[in-house]
Amino acid sequence: MSVGKELYKKISKIPILDIHTHVDFQNPFAKNAWQILSYHYFTEMAHSQGMPSEIVESKKISDKEKTEKLSKYLPYMQTTQPYFWLMALSKKLFDFPYSQLSPQNWKVLWECVEKKAKKTNRLREISKLSNIENISTTNLPWENLDGIEKHKNKKGKQFFVPTFRVDSLLTADKTTIKNLEEATCAKISNLEDYEKAISKRLAYFVKKGAKSLATSLNSTPLTIRVEKKQARIIFKKLSKGKSNDSAEFSAYMLDFLSNLCEKNKLPFQLMLGVERNVYSKGVPGGKDVFWPDGNLLGLKYLLNKYPKVKFPISVLSFTEDKELAVYARIFPNVYASGHWWFENTFESIKTNLKNRLRLVPHQKMIGQYSDAYTLELIETKIDMYKRALSDVLEEYVKEKSIDAETAIDIAEDLLYNEPKRIFSL
Amino acid sequence: MSVGKELYKKISKIPILDIHTHVDFQNPFAKNAWQILSYHYFTEMAHSQGMPSEIVESKKISDKEKTEKLSKYLPYMQTTQPYFWLMALSKKLFDFPYSQLSPQNWKVLWECVEKKAKKTNRLREISKLSNIENISTTNLPWENLDGIEKHKNKKGKQFFVPTFRVDSLLTADKTTIKNLEEATCAKISNLEDYEKAISKRLAYFVKKGAKSLATSLNSTPLTIRVEKKQARIIFKKLSKGKSNDSAEFSAYMLDFLSNLCEKNKLPFQLMLGVERNVYSKGVPGGKDVFWPDGNLLGLKYLLNKYPKVKFPISVLSFTEDKELAVYARIFPNVYASGHWWFENTFESIKTNLKNRLRLVPHQKMIGQYSDAYTLELIETKIDMYKRALSDVLEEYVKEKSIDAETAIDIAEDLLYNEPKRIFSL
Amino acid sequence: MSVGKELYKKISKIPILDIHTHVDFQNPFAKNAWQILSYHYFTEMAHSQGMPSEIVESKKISDKEKTEKLSKYLPYMQTTQPYFWLMALSKKLFDFPYSQLSPQNWKVLWECVEKKAKKTNRLREISKLSNIENISTTNLPWENLDGIEKHKNKKGKQFFVPTFRVDSLLTADKTTIKNLEEATCAKISNLEDYEKAISKRLAYFVKKGAKSLATSLNSTPLTIRVEKKQARIIFKKLSKGKSNDSAEFSAYMLDFLSNLCEKNKLPFQLMLGVERNVYSKGVPGGKDVFWPDGNLLGLKYLLNKYPKVKFPISVLSFTEDKELAVYARIFPNVYASGHWWFENTFESIKTNLKNRLRLVPHQKMIGQYSDAYTLELIETKIDMYKRALSDVLEEYVKEKSIDAETAIDIAEDLLYNEPKRIFSL
Repeated sequence: MSVGKELYKKISKIPILDIHTHVDFQNPFAKNAWQILSYHYFTEMAHSQGMPSEIVESKKISDKEKTEKLSKYLPYMQTTQPYFWLMALSKKLFDFPYSQLSPQNWKVLWECVEKKAKKTNRLREISKLSNIENISTTNLPWENLDGIEKHKNKKGKQFFVPTFRVDSLLTADKTTIKNLEEATCAKISNLEDYEKAISKRLAYFVKKGAKSLATSLNSTPLTIRVEKKQARIIFKKLSKGKSNDSAEFSAYMLDFLSNLCEKNKLPFQLMLGVERNVYSKGVPGGKDVFWPDGNLLGLKYLLNKYPKVKFPISVLSFTEDKELAVYARIFPNVYASGHWWFENTFESIKTNLKNRLRLVPHQKMIGQYSDAYTLELIETKIDMYKRALSDVLEEYVKEKSIDAETAIDIAEDLLYNEPKRIFSL
Repeated sequence: MSVGKELYKKISKIPILDIHTHVDFQNPFAKNAWQILSYHYFTEMAHSQGMPSEIVESKKISDKEKTEKLSKYLPYMQTTQPYFWLMALSKKLFDFPYSQLSPQNWKVLWECVEKKAKKTNRLREISKLSNIENISTTNLPWENLDGIEKHKNKKGKQFFVPTFRVDSLLTADKTTIKNLEEATCAKISNLEDYEKAISKRLAYFVKKGAKSLATSLNSTPLTIRVEKKQARIIFKKLSKGKSNDSAEFSAYMLDFLSNLCEKNKLPFQLMLGVERNVYSKGVPGGKDVFWPDGNLLGLKYLLNKYPKVKFPISVLSFTEDKELAVYARIFPNVYASGHWWFENTFESIKTNLKNRLRLVPHQKMIGQYSDAYTLELIETKIDMYKRALSDVLEEYVKEKSIDAETAIDIAEDLLYNEPKRIFSL
Repeated sequence: MSVGKELYKKISKIPILDIHTHVDFQNPFAKNAWQILSYHYFTEMAHSQGMPSEIVESKKISDKEKTEKLSKYLPYMQTTQPYFWLMALSKKLFDFPYSQLSPQNWKVLWECVEKKAKKTNRLREISKLSNIENISTTNLPWENLDGIEKHKNKKGKQFFVPTFRVDSLLTADKTTIKNLEEATCAKISNLEDYEKAISKRLAYFVKKGAKSLATSLNSTPLTIRVEKKQARIIFKKLSKGKSNDSAEFSAYMLDFLSNLCEKNKLPFQLMLGVERNVYSKGVPGGKDVFWPDGNLLGLKYLLNKYPKVKFPISVLSFTEDKELAVYARIFPNVYASGHWWFENTFESIKTNLKNRLRLVPHQKMIGQYSDAYTLELIETKIDMYKRALSDVLEEYVKEKSIDAETAIDIAEDLLYNEPKRIFSL
């Protein structure tokens, strides 16, 4: 057996602590095949091949019909990463017997999924088969988390760990304010009310086990000092719908939220590089691209101001990933976190990992998170990272920089010890 | 034999449909060695080592002397991609007996080329040795295409397929207008006349077998809605030489031309990223660089407005290639097309292909075109792509994502079926 | 033995001509272990893990204590490139007996270094063990170089070759002017005085054996024509501290200094891409990042104006490295020089080298320099490049583009002949 395969054999057994998913804690696994295939990674690739985008959201078409329609476009996805995940999870979690999913055999998968979904303890089964210890969910500030704390893992710890997702708070639009008012049962008339409501909701989240804040940001986020006086004026306009989203107000809120992080000793996950709604007629989730010439310099103010807040950062291009590595190398509060979205392929992970490991102390990194929408996708996504990591660490062992045991220790740090430490899991 | 070599053995036999070349249909192959070595890929590397740029265009120096002078700089090009092509084609098409071309043996190549050029049916010989089915030429809007349709391939189809190259039309300068007037035998006094002349020329091109439009664009092309009233005003200035090239007029014309594409059901090849005339004293073709922080966002308006026009797009950097992959993944009308110019090396192709195949359904891609200036360079350039593709597909077969047969099917799609379908060849 | 290892065996023996270091010619090697570990590549990675930055510069803490404190952070640096260098030099130059340096055994290294430092002829010993022929130092314009010419290598040539480092001259701030006044014993009242002082100091440098000028530049350097009249006005403000640094004045000075290069037939090393002081509380040298979307287009004016001045250029990102390759390919006066700072890892070198060798005649490149602060780091850094180069050339030999002998000739050109020729060493 090659060094890499021996490393993988052990690394594959490291339990999963997933610090970033979009799993719905009240509906964590798929009831039918469409609930897996409706993931925009699949629907956008079907649409760009010709599947009308209306199909995805149509209420007139059954999930089964949608699955059939999408299956026609699978044969041209065979080289893509999402297809790889699909085949891996179909085999591992649904005993799907074929090596390819096609317009000919999609019904078999449909039946496999339906059958498994009916099993009692399906959540526990998937978690066990996937070796998941716990996962972080992503929750809107006004979300009702009641009951999220009830599901425990076998160590007796909370299985679903909520995350306070703050994108909407940066805009202070009417809907956001209305939602916050309802969740806090209090009127929001000015910036102070807004801040109070946010603090209140965060306190609720912390009570429910939240371990971090998270937001996505565009590729050139602005973080600057904004006077409260000025923020009050902008808030008034935004909250009344008299102005669109304001980079200045967003900067003010990032400051305010970082401050909350400091007080509550919570890390703040920043996910950079998205350019939203570039393809306006795309399927839900399939309208966005990344911005190739973004950079982290816009975070300068924030990173210097909050040395005690841990910022796990994710980016969307190779160049920015190298920049991120440099920031994680010199800033005590920056962590290079996972491999996100368009960077989440076997090859990109390998390329970025090679750079990160050469440039950054490995306790300044978080290996990988899944970003998955259903529980089934977690293991295969993390497993892909484990394979890439094994390949990269093999080179170190071969050149005798480290021995195999140390390589496995490093993998455990990246995948388990560091997320546990940074997120206090 | 390794998996990769077995794949290559079969992939190498896929016939060539070359959708983008600069071959002169009236003079498609080299009459002497200089007609190969005068390709700017060689002359610019000789010049940057010390060869005066004047030599290239001088009428006082014979082609043979030019070849001798350039040969002095070949020994330092041995690691470069163009040198690799040169050696491959010298051996395959000219029976050149040495493994390196040098100041000592350039005369042997000179004689080999002269001898071969005199053979009757040389065009057919090269096509057969190169396994070329047909090639697209690149033609100025006022070019006389009479006779282009006469040369047929063994399937009885047109061998030279013209392309309506529109770069000059975006500027509407005096020379462009004069050339258009001559070609259409009509006076161009205003924007309407200009548009009519263009439509007329395109109709002529279509009659002569044209299958697409093409233009190169700088790295931050602007595509926005421009009112016709406004376009008329700018046209007047441009056509009288009272203004330089205008981004706004260019945007208007891209809109107009995309509309023509829609009406004529022709794809529109966009080649992004060139920055022209940066080194003013360079050899012809050797004055340009690429712009490292370009991006595709400037195409947003056009791509959203013309969902039915197929846009095969090429770019000039790794980051932009990843961006292109994302666009091809979500936009139904975007195709990731080939690997152009400075990205056209064995290593860049491999790197970009790995990303594209992981991110994009493979029917949203065109494998490779040659961009060659003479027929001789086509096969070696495409063959390099085939080697890179075989290496990349080998990994899929090894990890058992696909079997060898599927890998070859995918290669045939990329190299033959997709260009055939997209360009209606 | 593999082809790559056989190549490496020979390539490793090529003597070192190091065209860019920060070695202090009066104190060229480490007197104790801290003088190696205080290199910011190590201290910044200790600091980002938790070591207070104050420790680095504190005068209350002994070098031995500093070494102990930093040693705690070494275990998490095991995958990083600087750690790799550290272990290699510890073994080769200090007979350190362990394969890892740790909080447990740092004292052993301390003692090894102290012992070796006391040896007579330590400088000669390191040079011999490292196979260094000569090195370029980096010197401030007002630096006293007396004695630098005395140390000769075994060929009888000057061992320390000074470099006129001009960063400070681009700003014309009060300190710079004061230092220049002291060094030239002349009052500087205006731009003409300033230029005279610079010319005088350069003449002194040349007398002391200087072979080049060097400056780092930010990622978007401006080079344009600036009228002397205008420069005079800006100079007055800058020199009186009435203005901060001026891009326009910097452009003027780059022009002036390039002119001096032309007159003195000296190359001008340009090192692009640094963004200074982004992390204000970082350790010395550990406050800077690179700018991911820089480009070389800002050099257009300078590169076109001074065709006779050789510009060895270094950059800080993969994309810009590809851009650099394109410039070296077409501009006779541009040389792709080494692999700098964050690009100076085994993987980045391999990636960049593959691109450069495919795009650029190899006499338009300088293989590598060390950028080292003490003599001990030179050999291991250059050796890493030699390993990367051997791996890359192996592929050429395997695909039969060149034979092993030619590969070694090319390596000798990159590492020895080209720096010797370009810098007249």
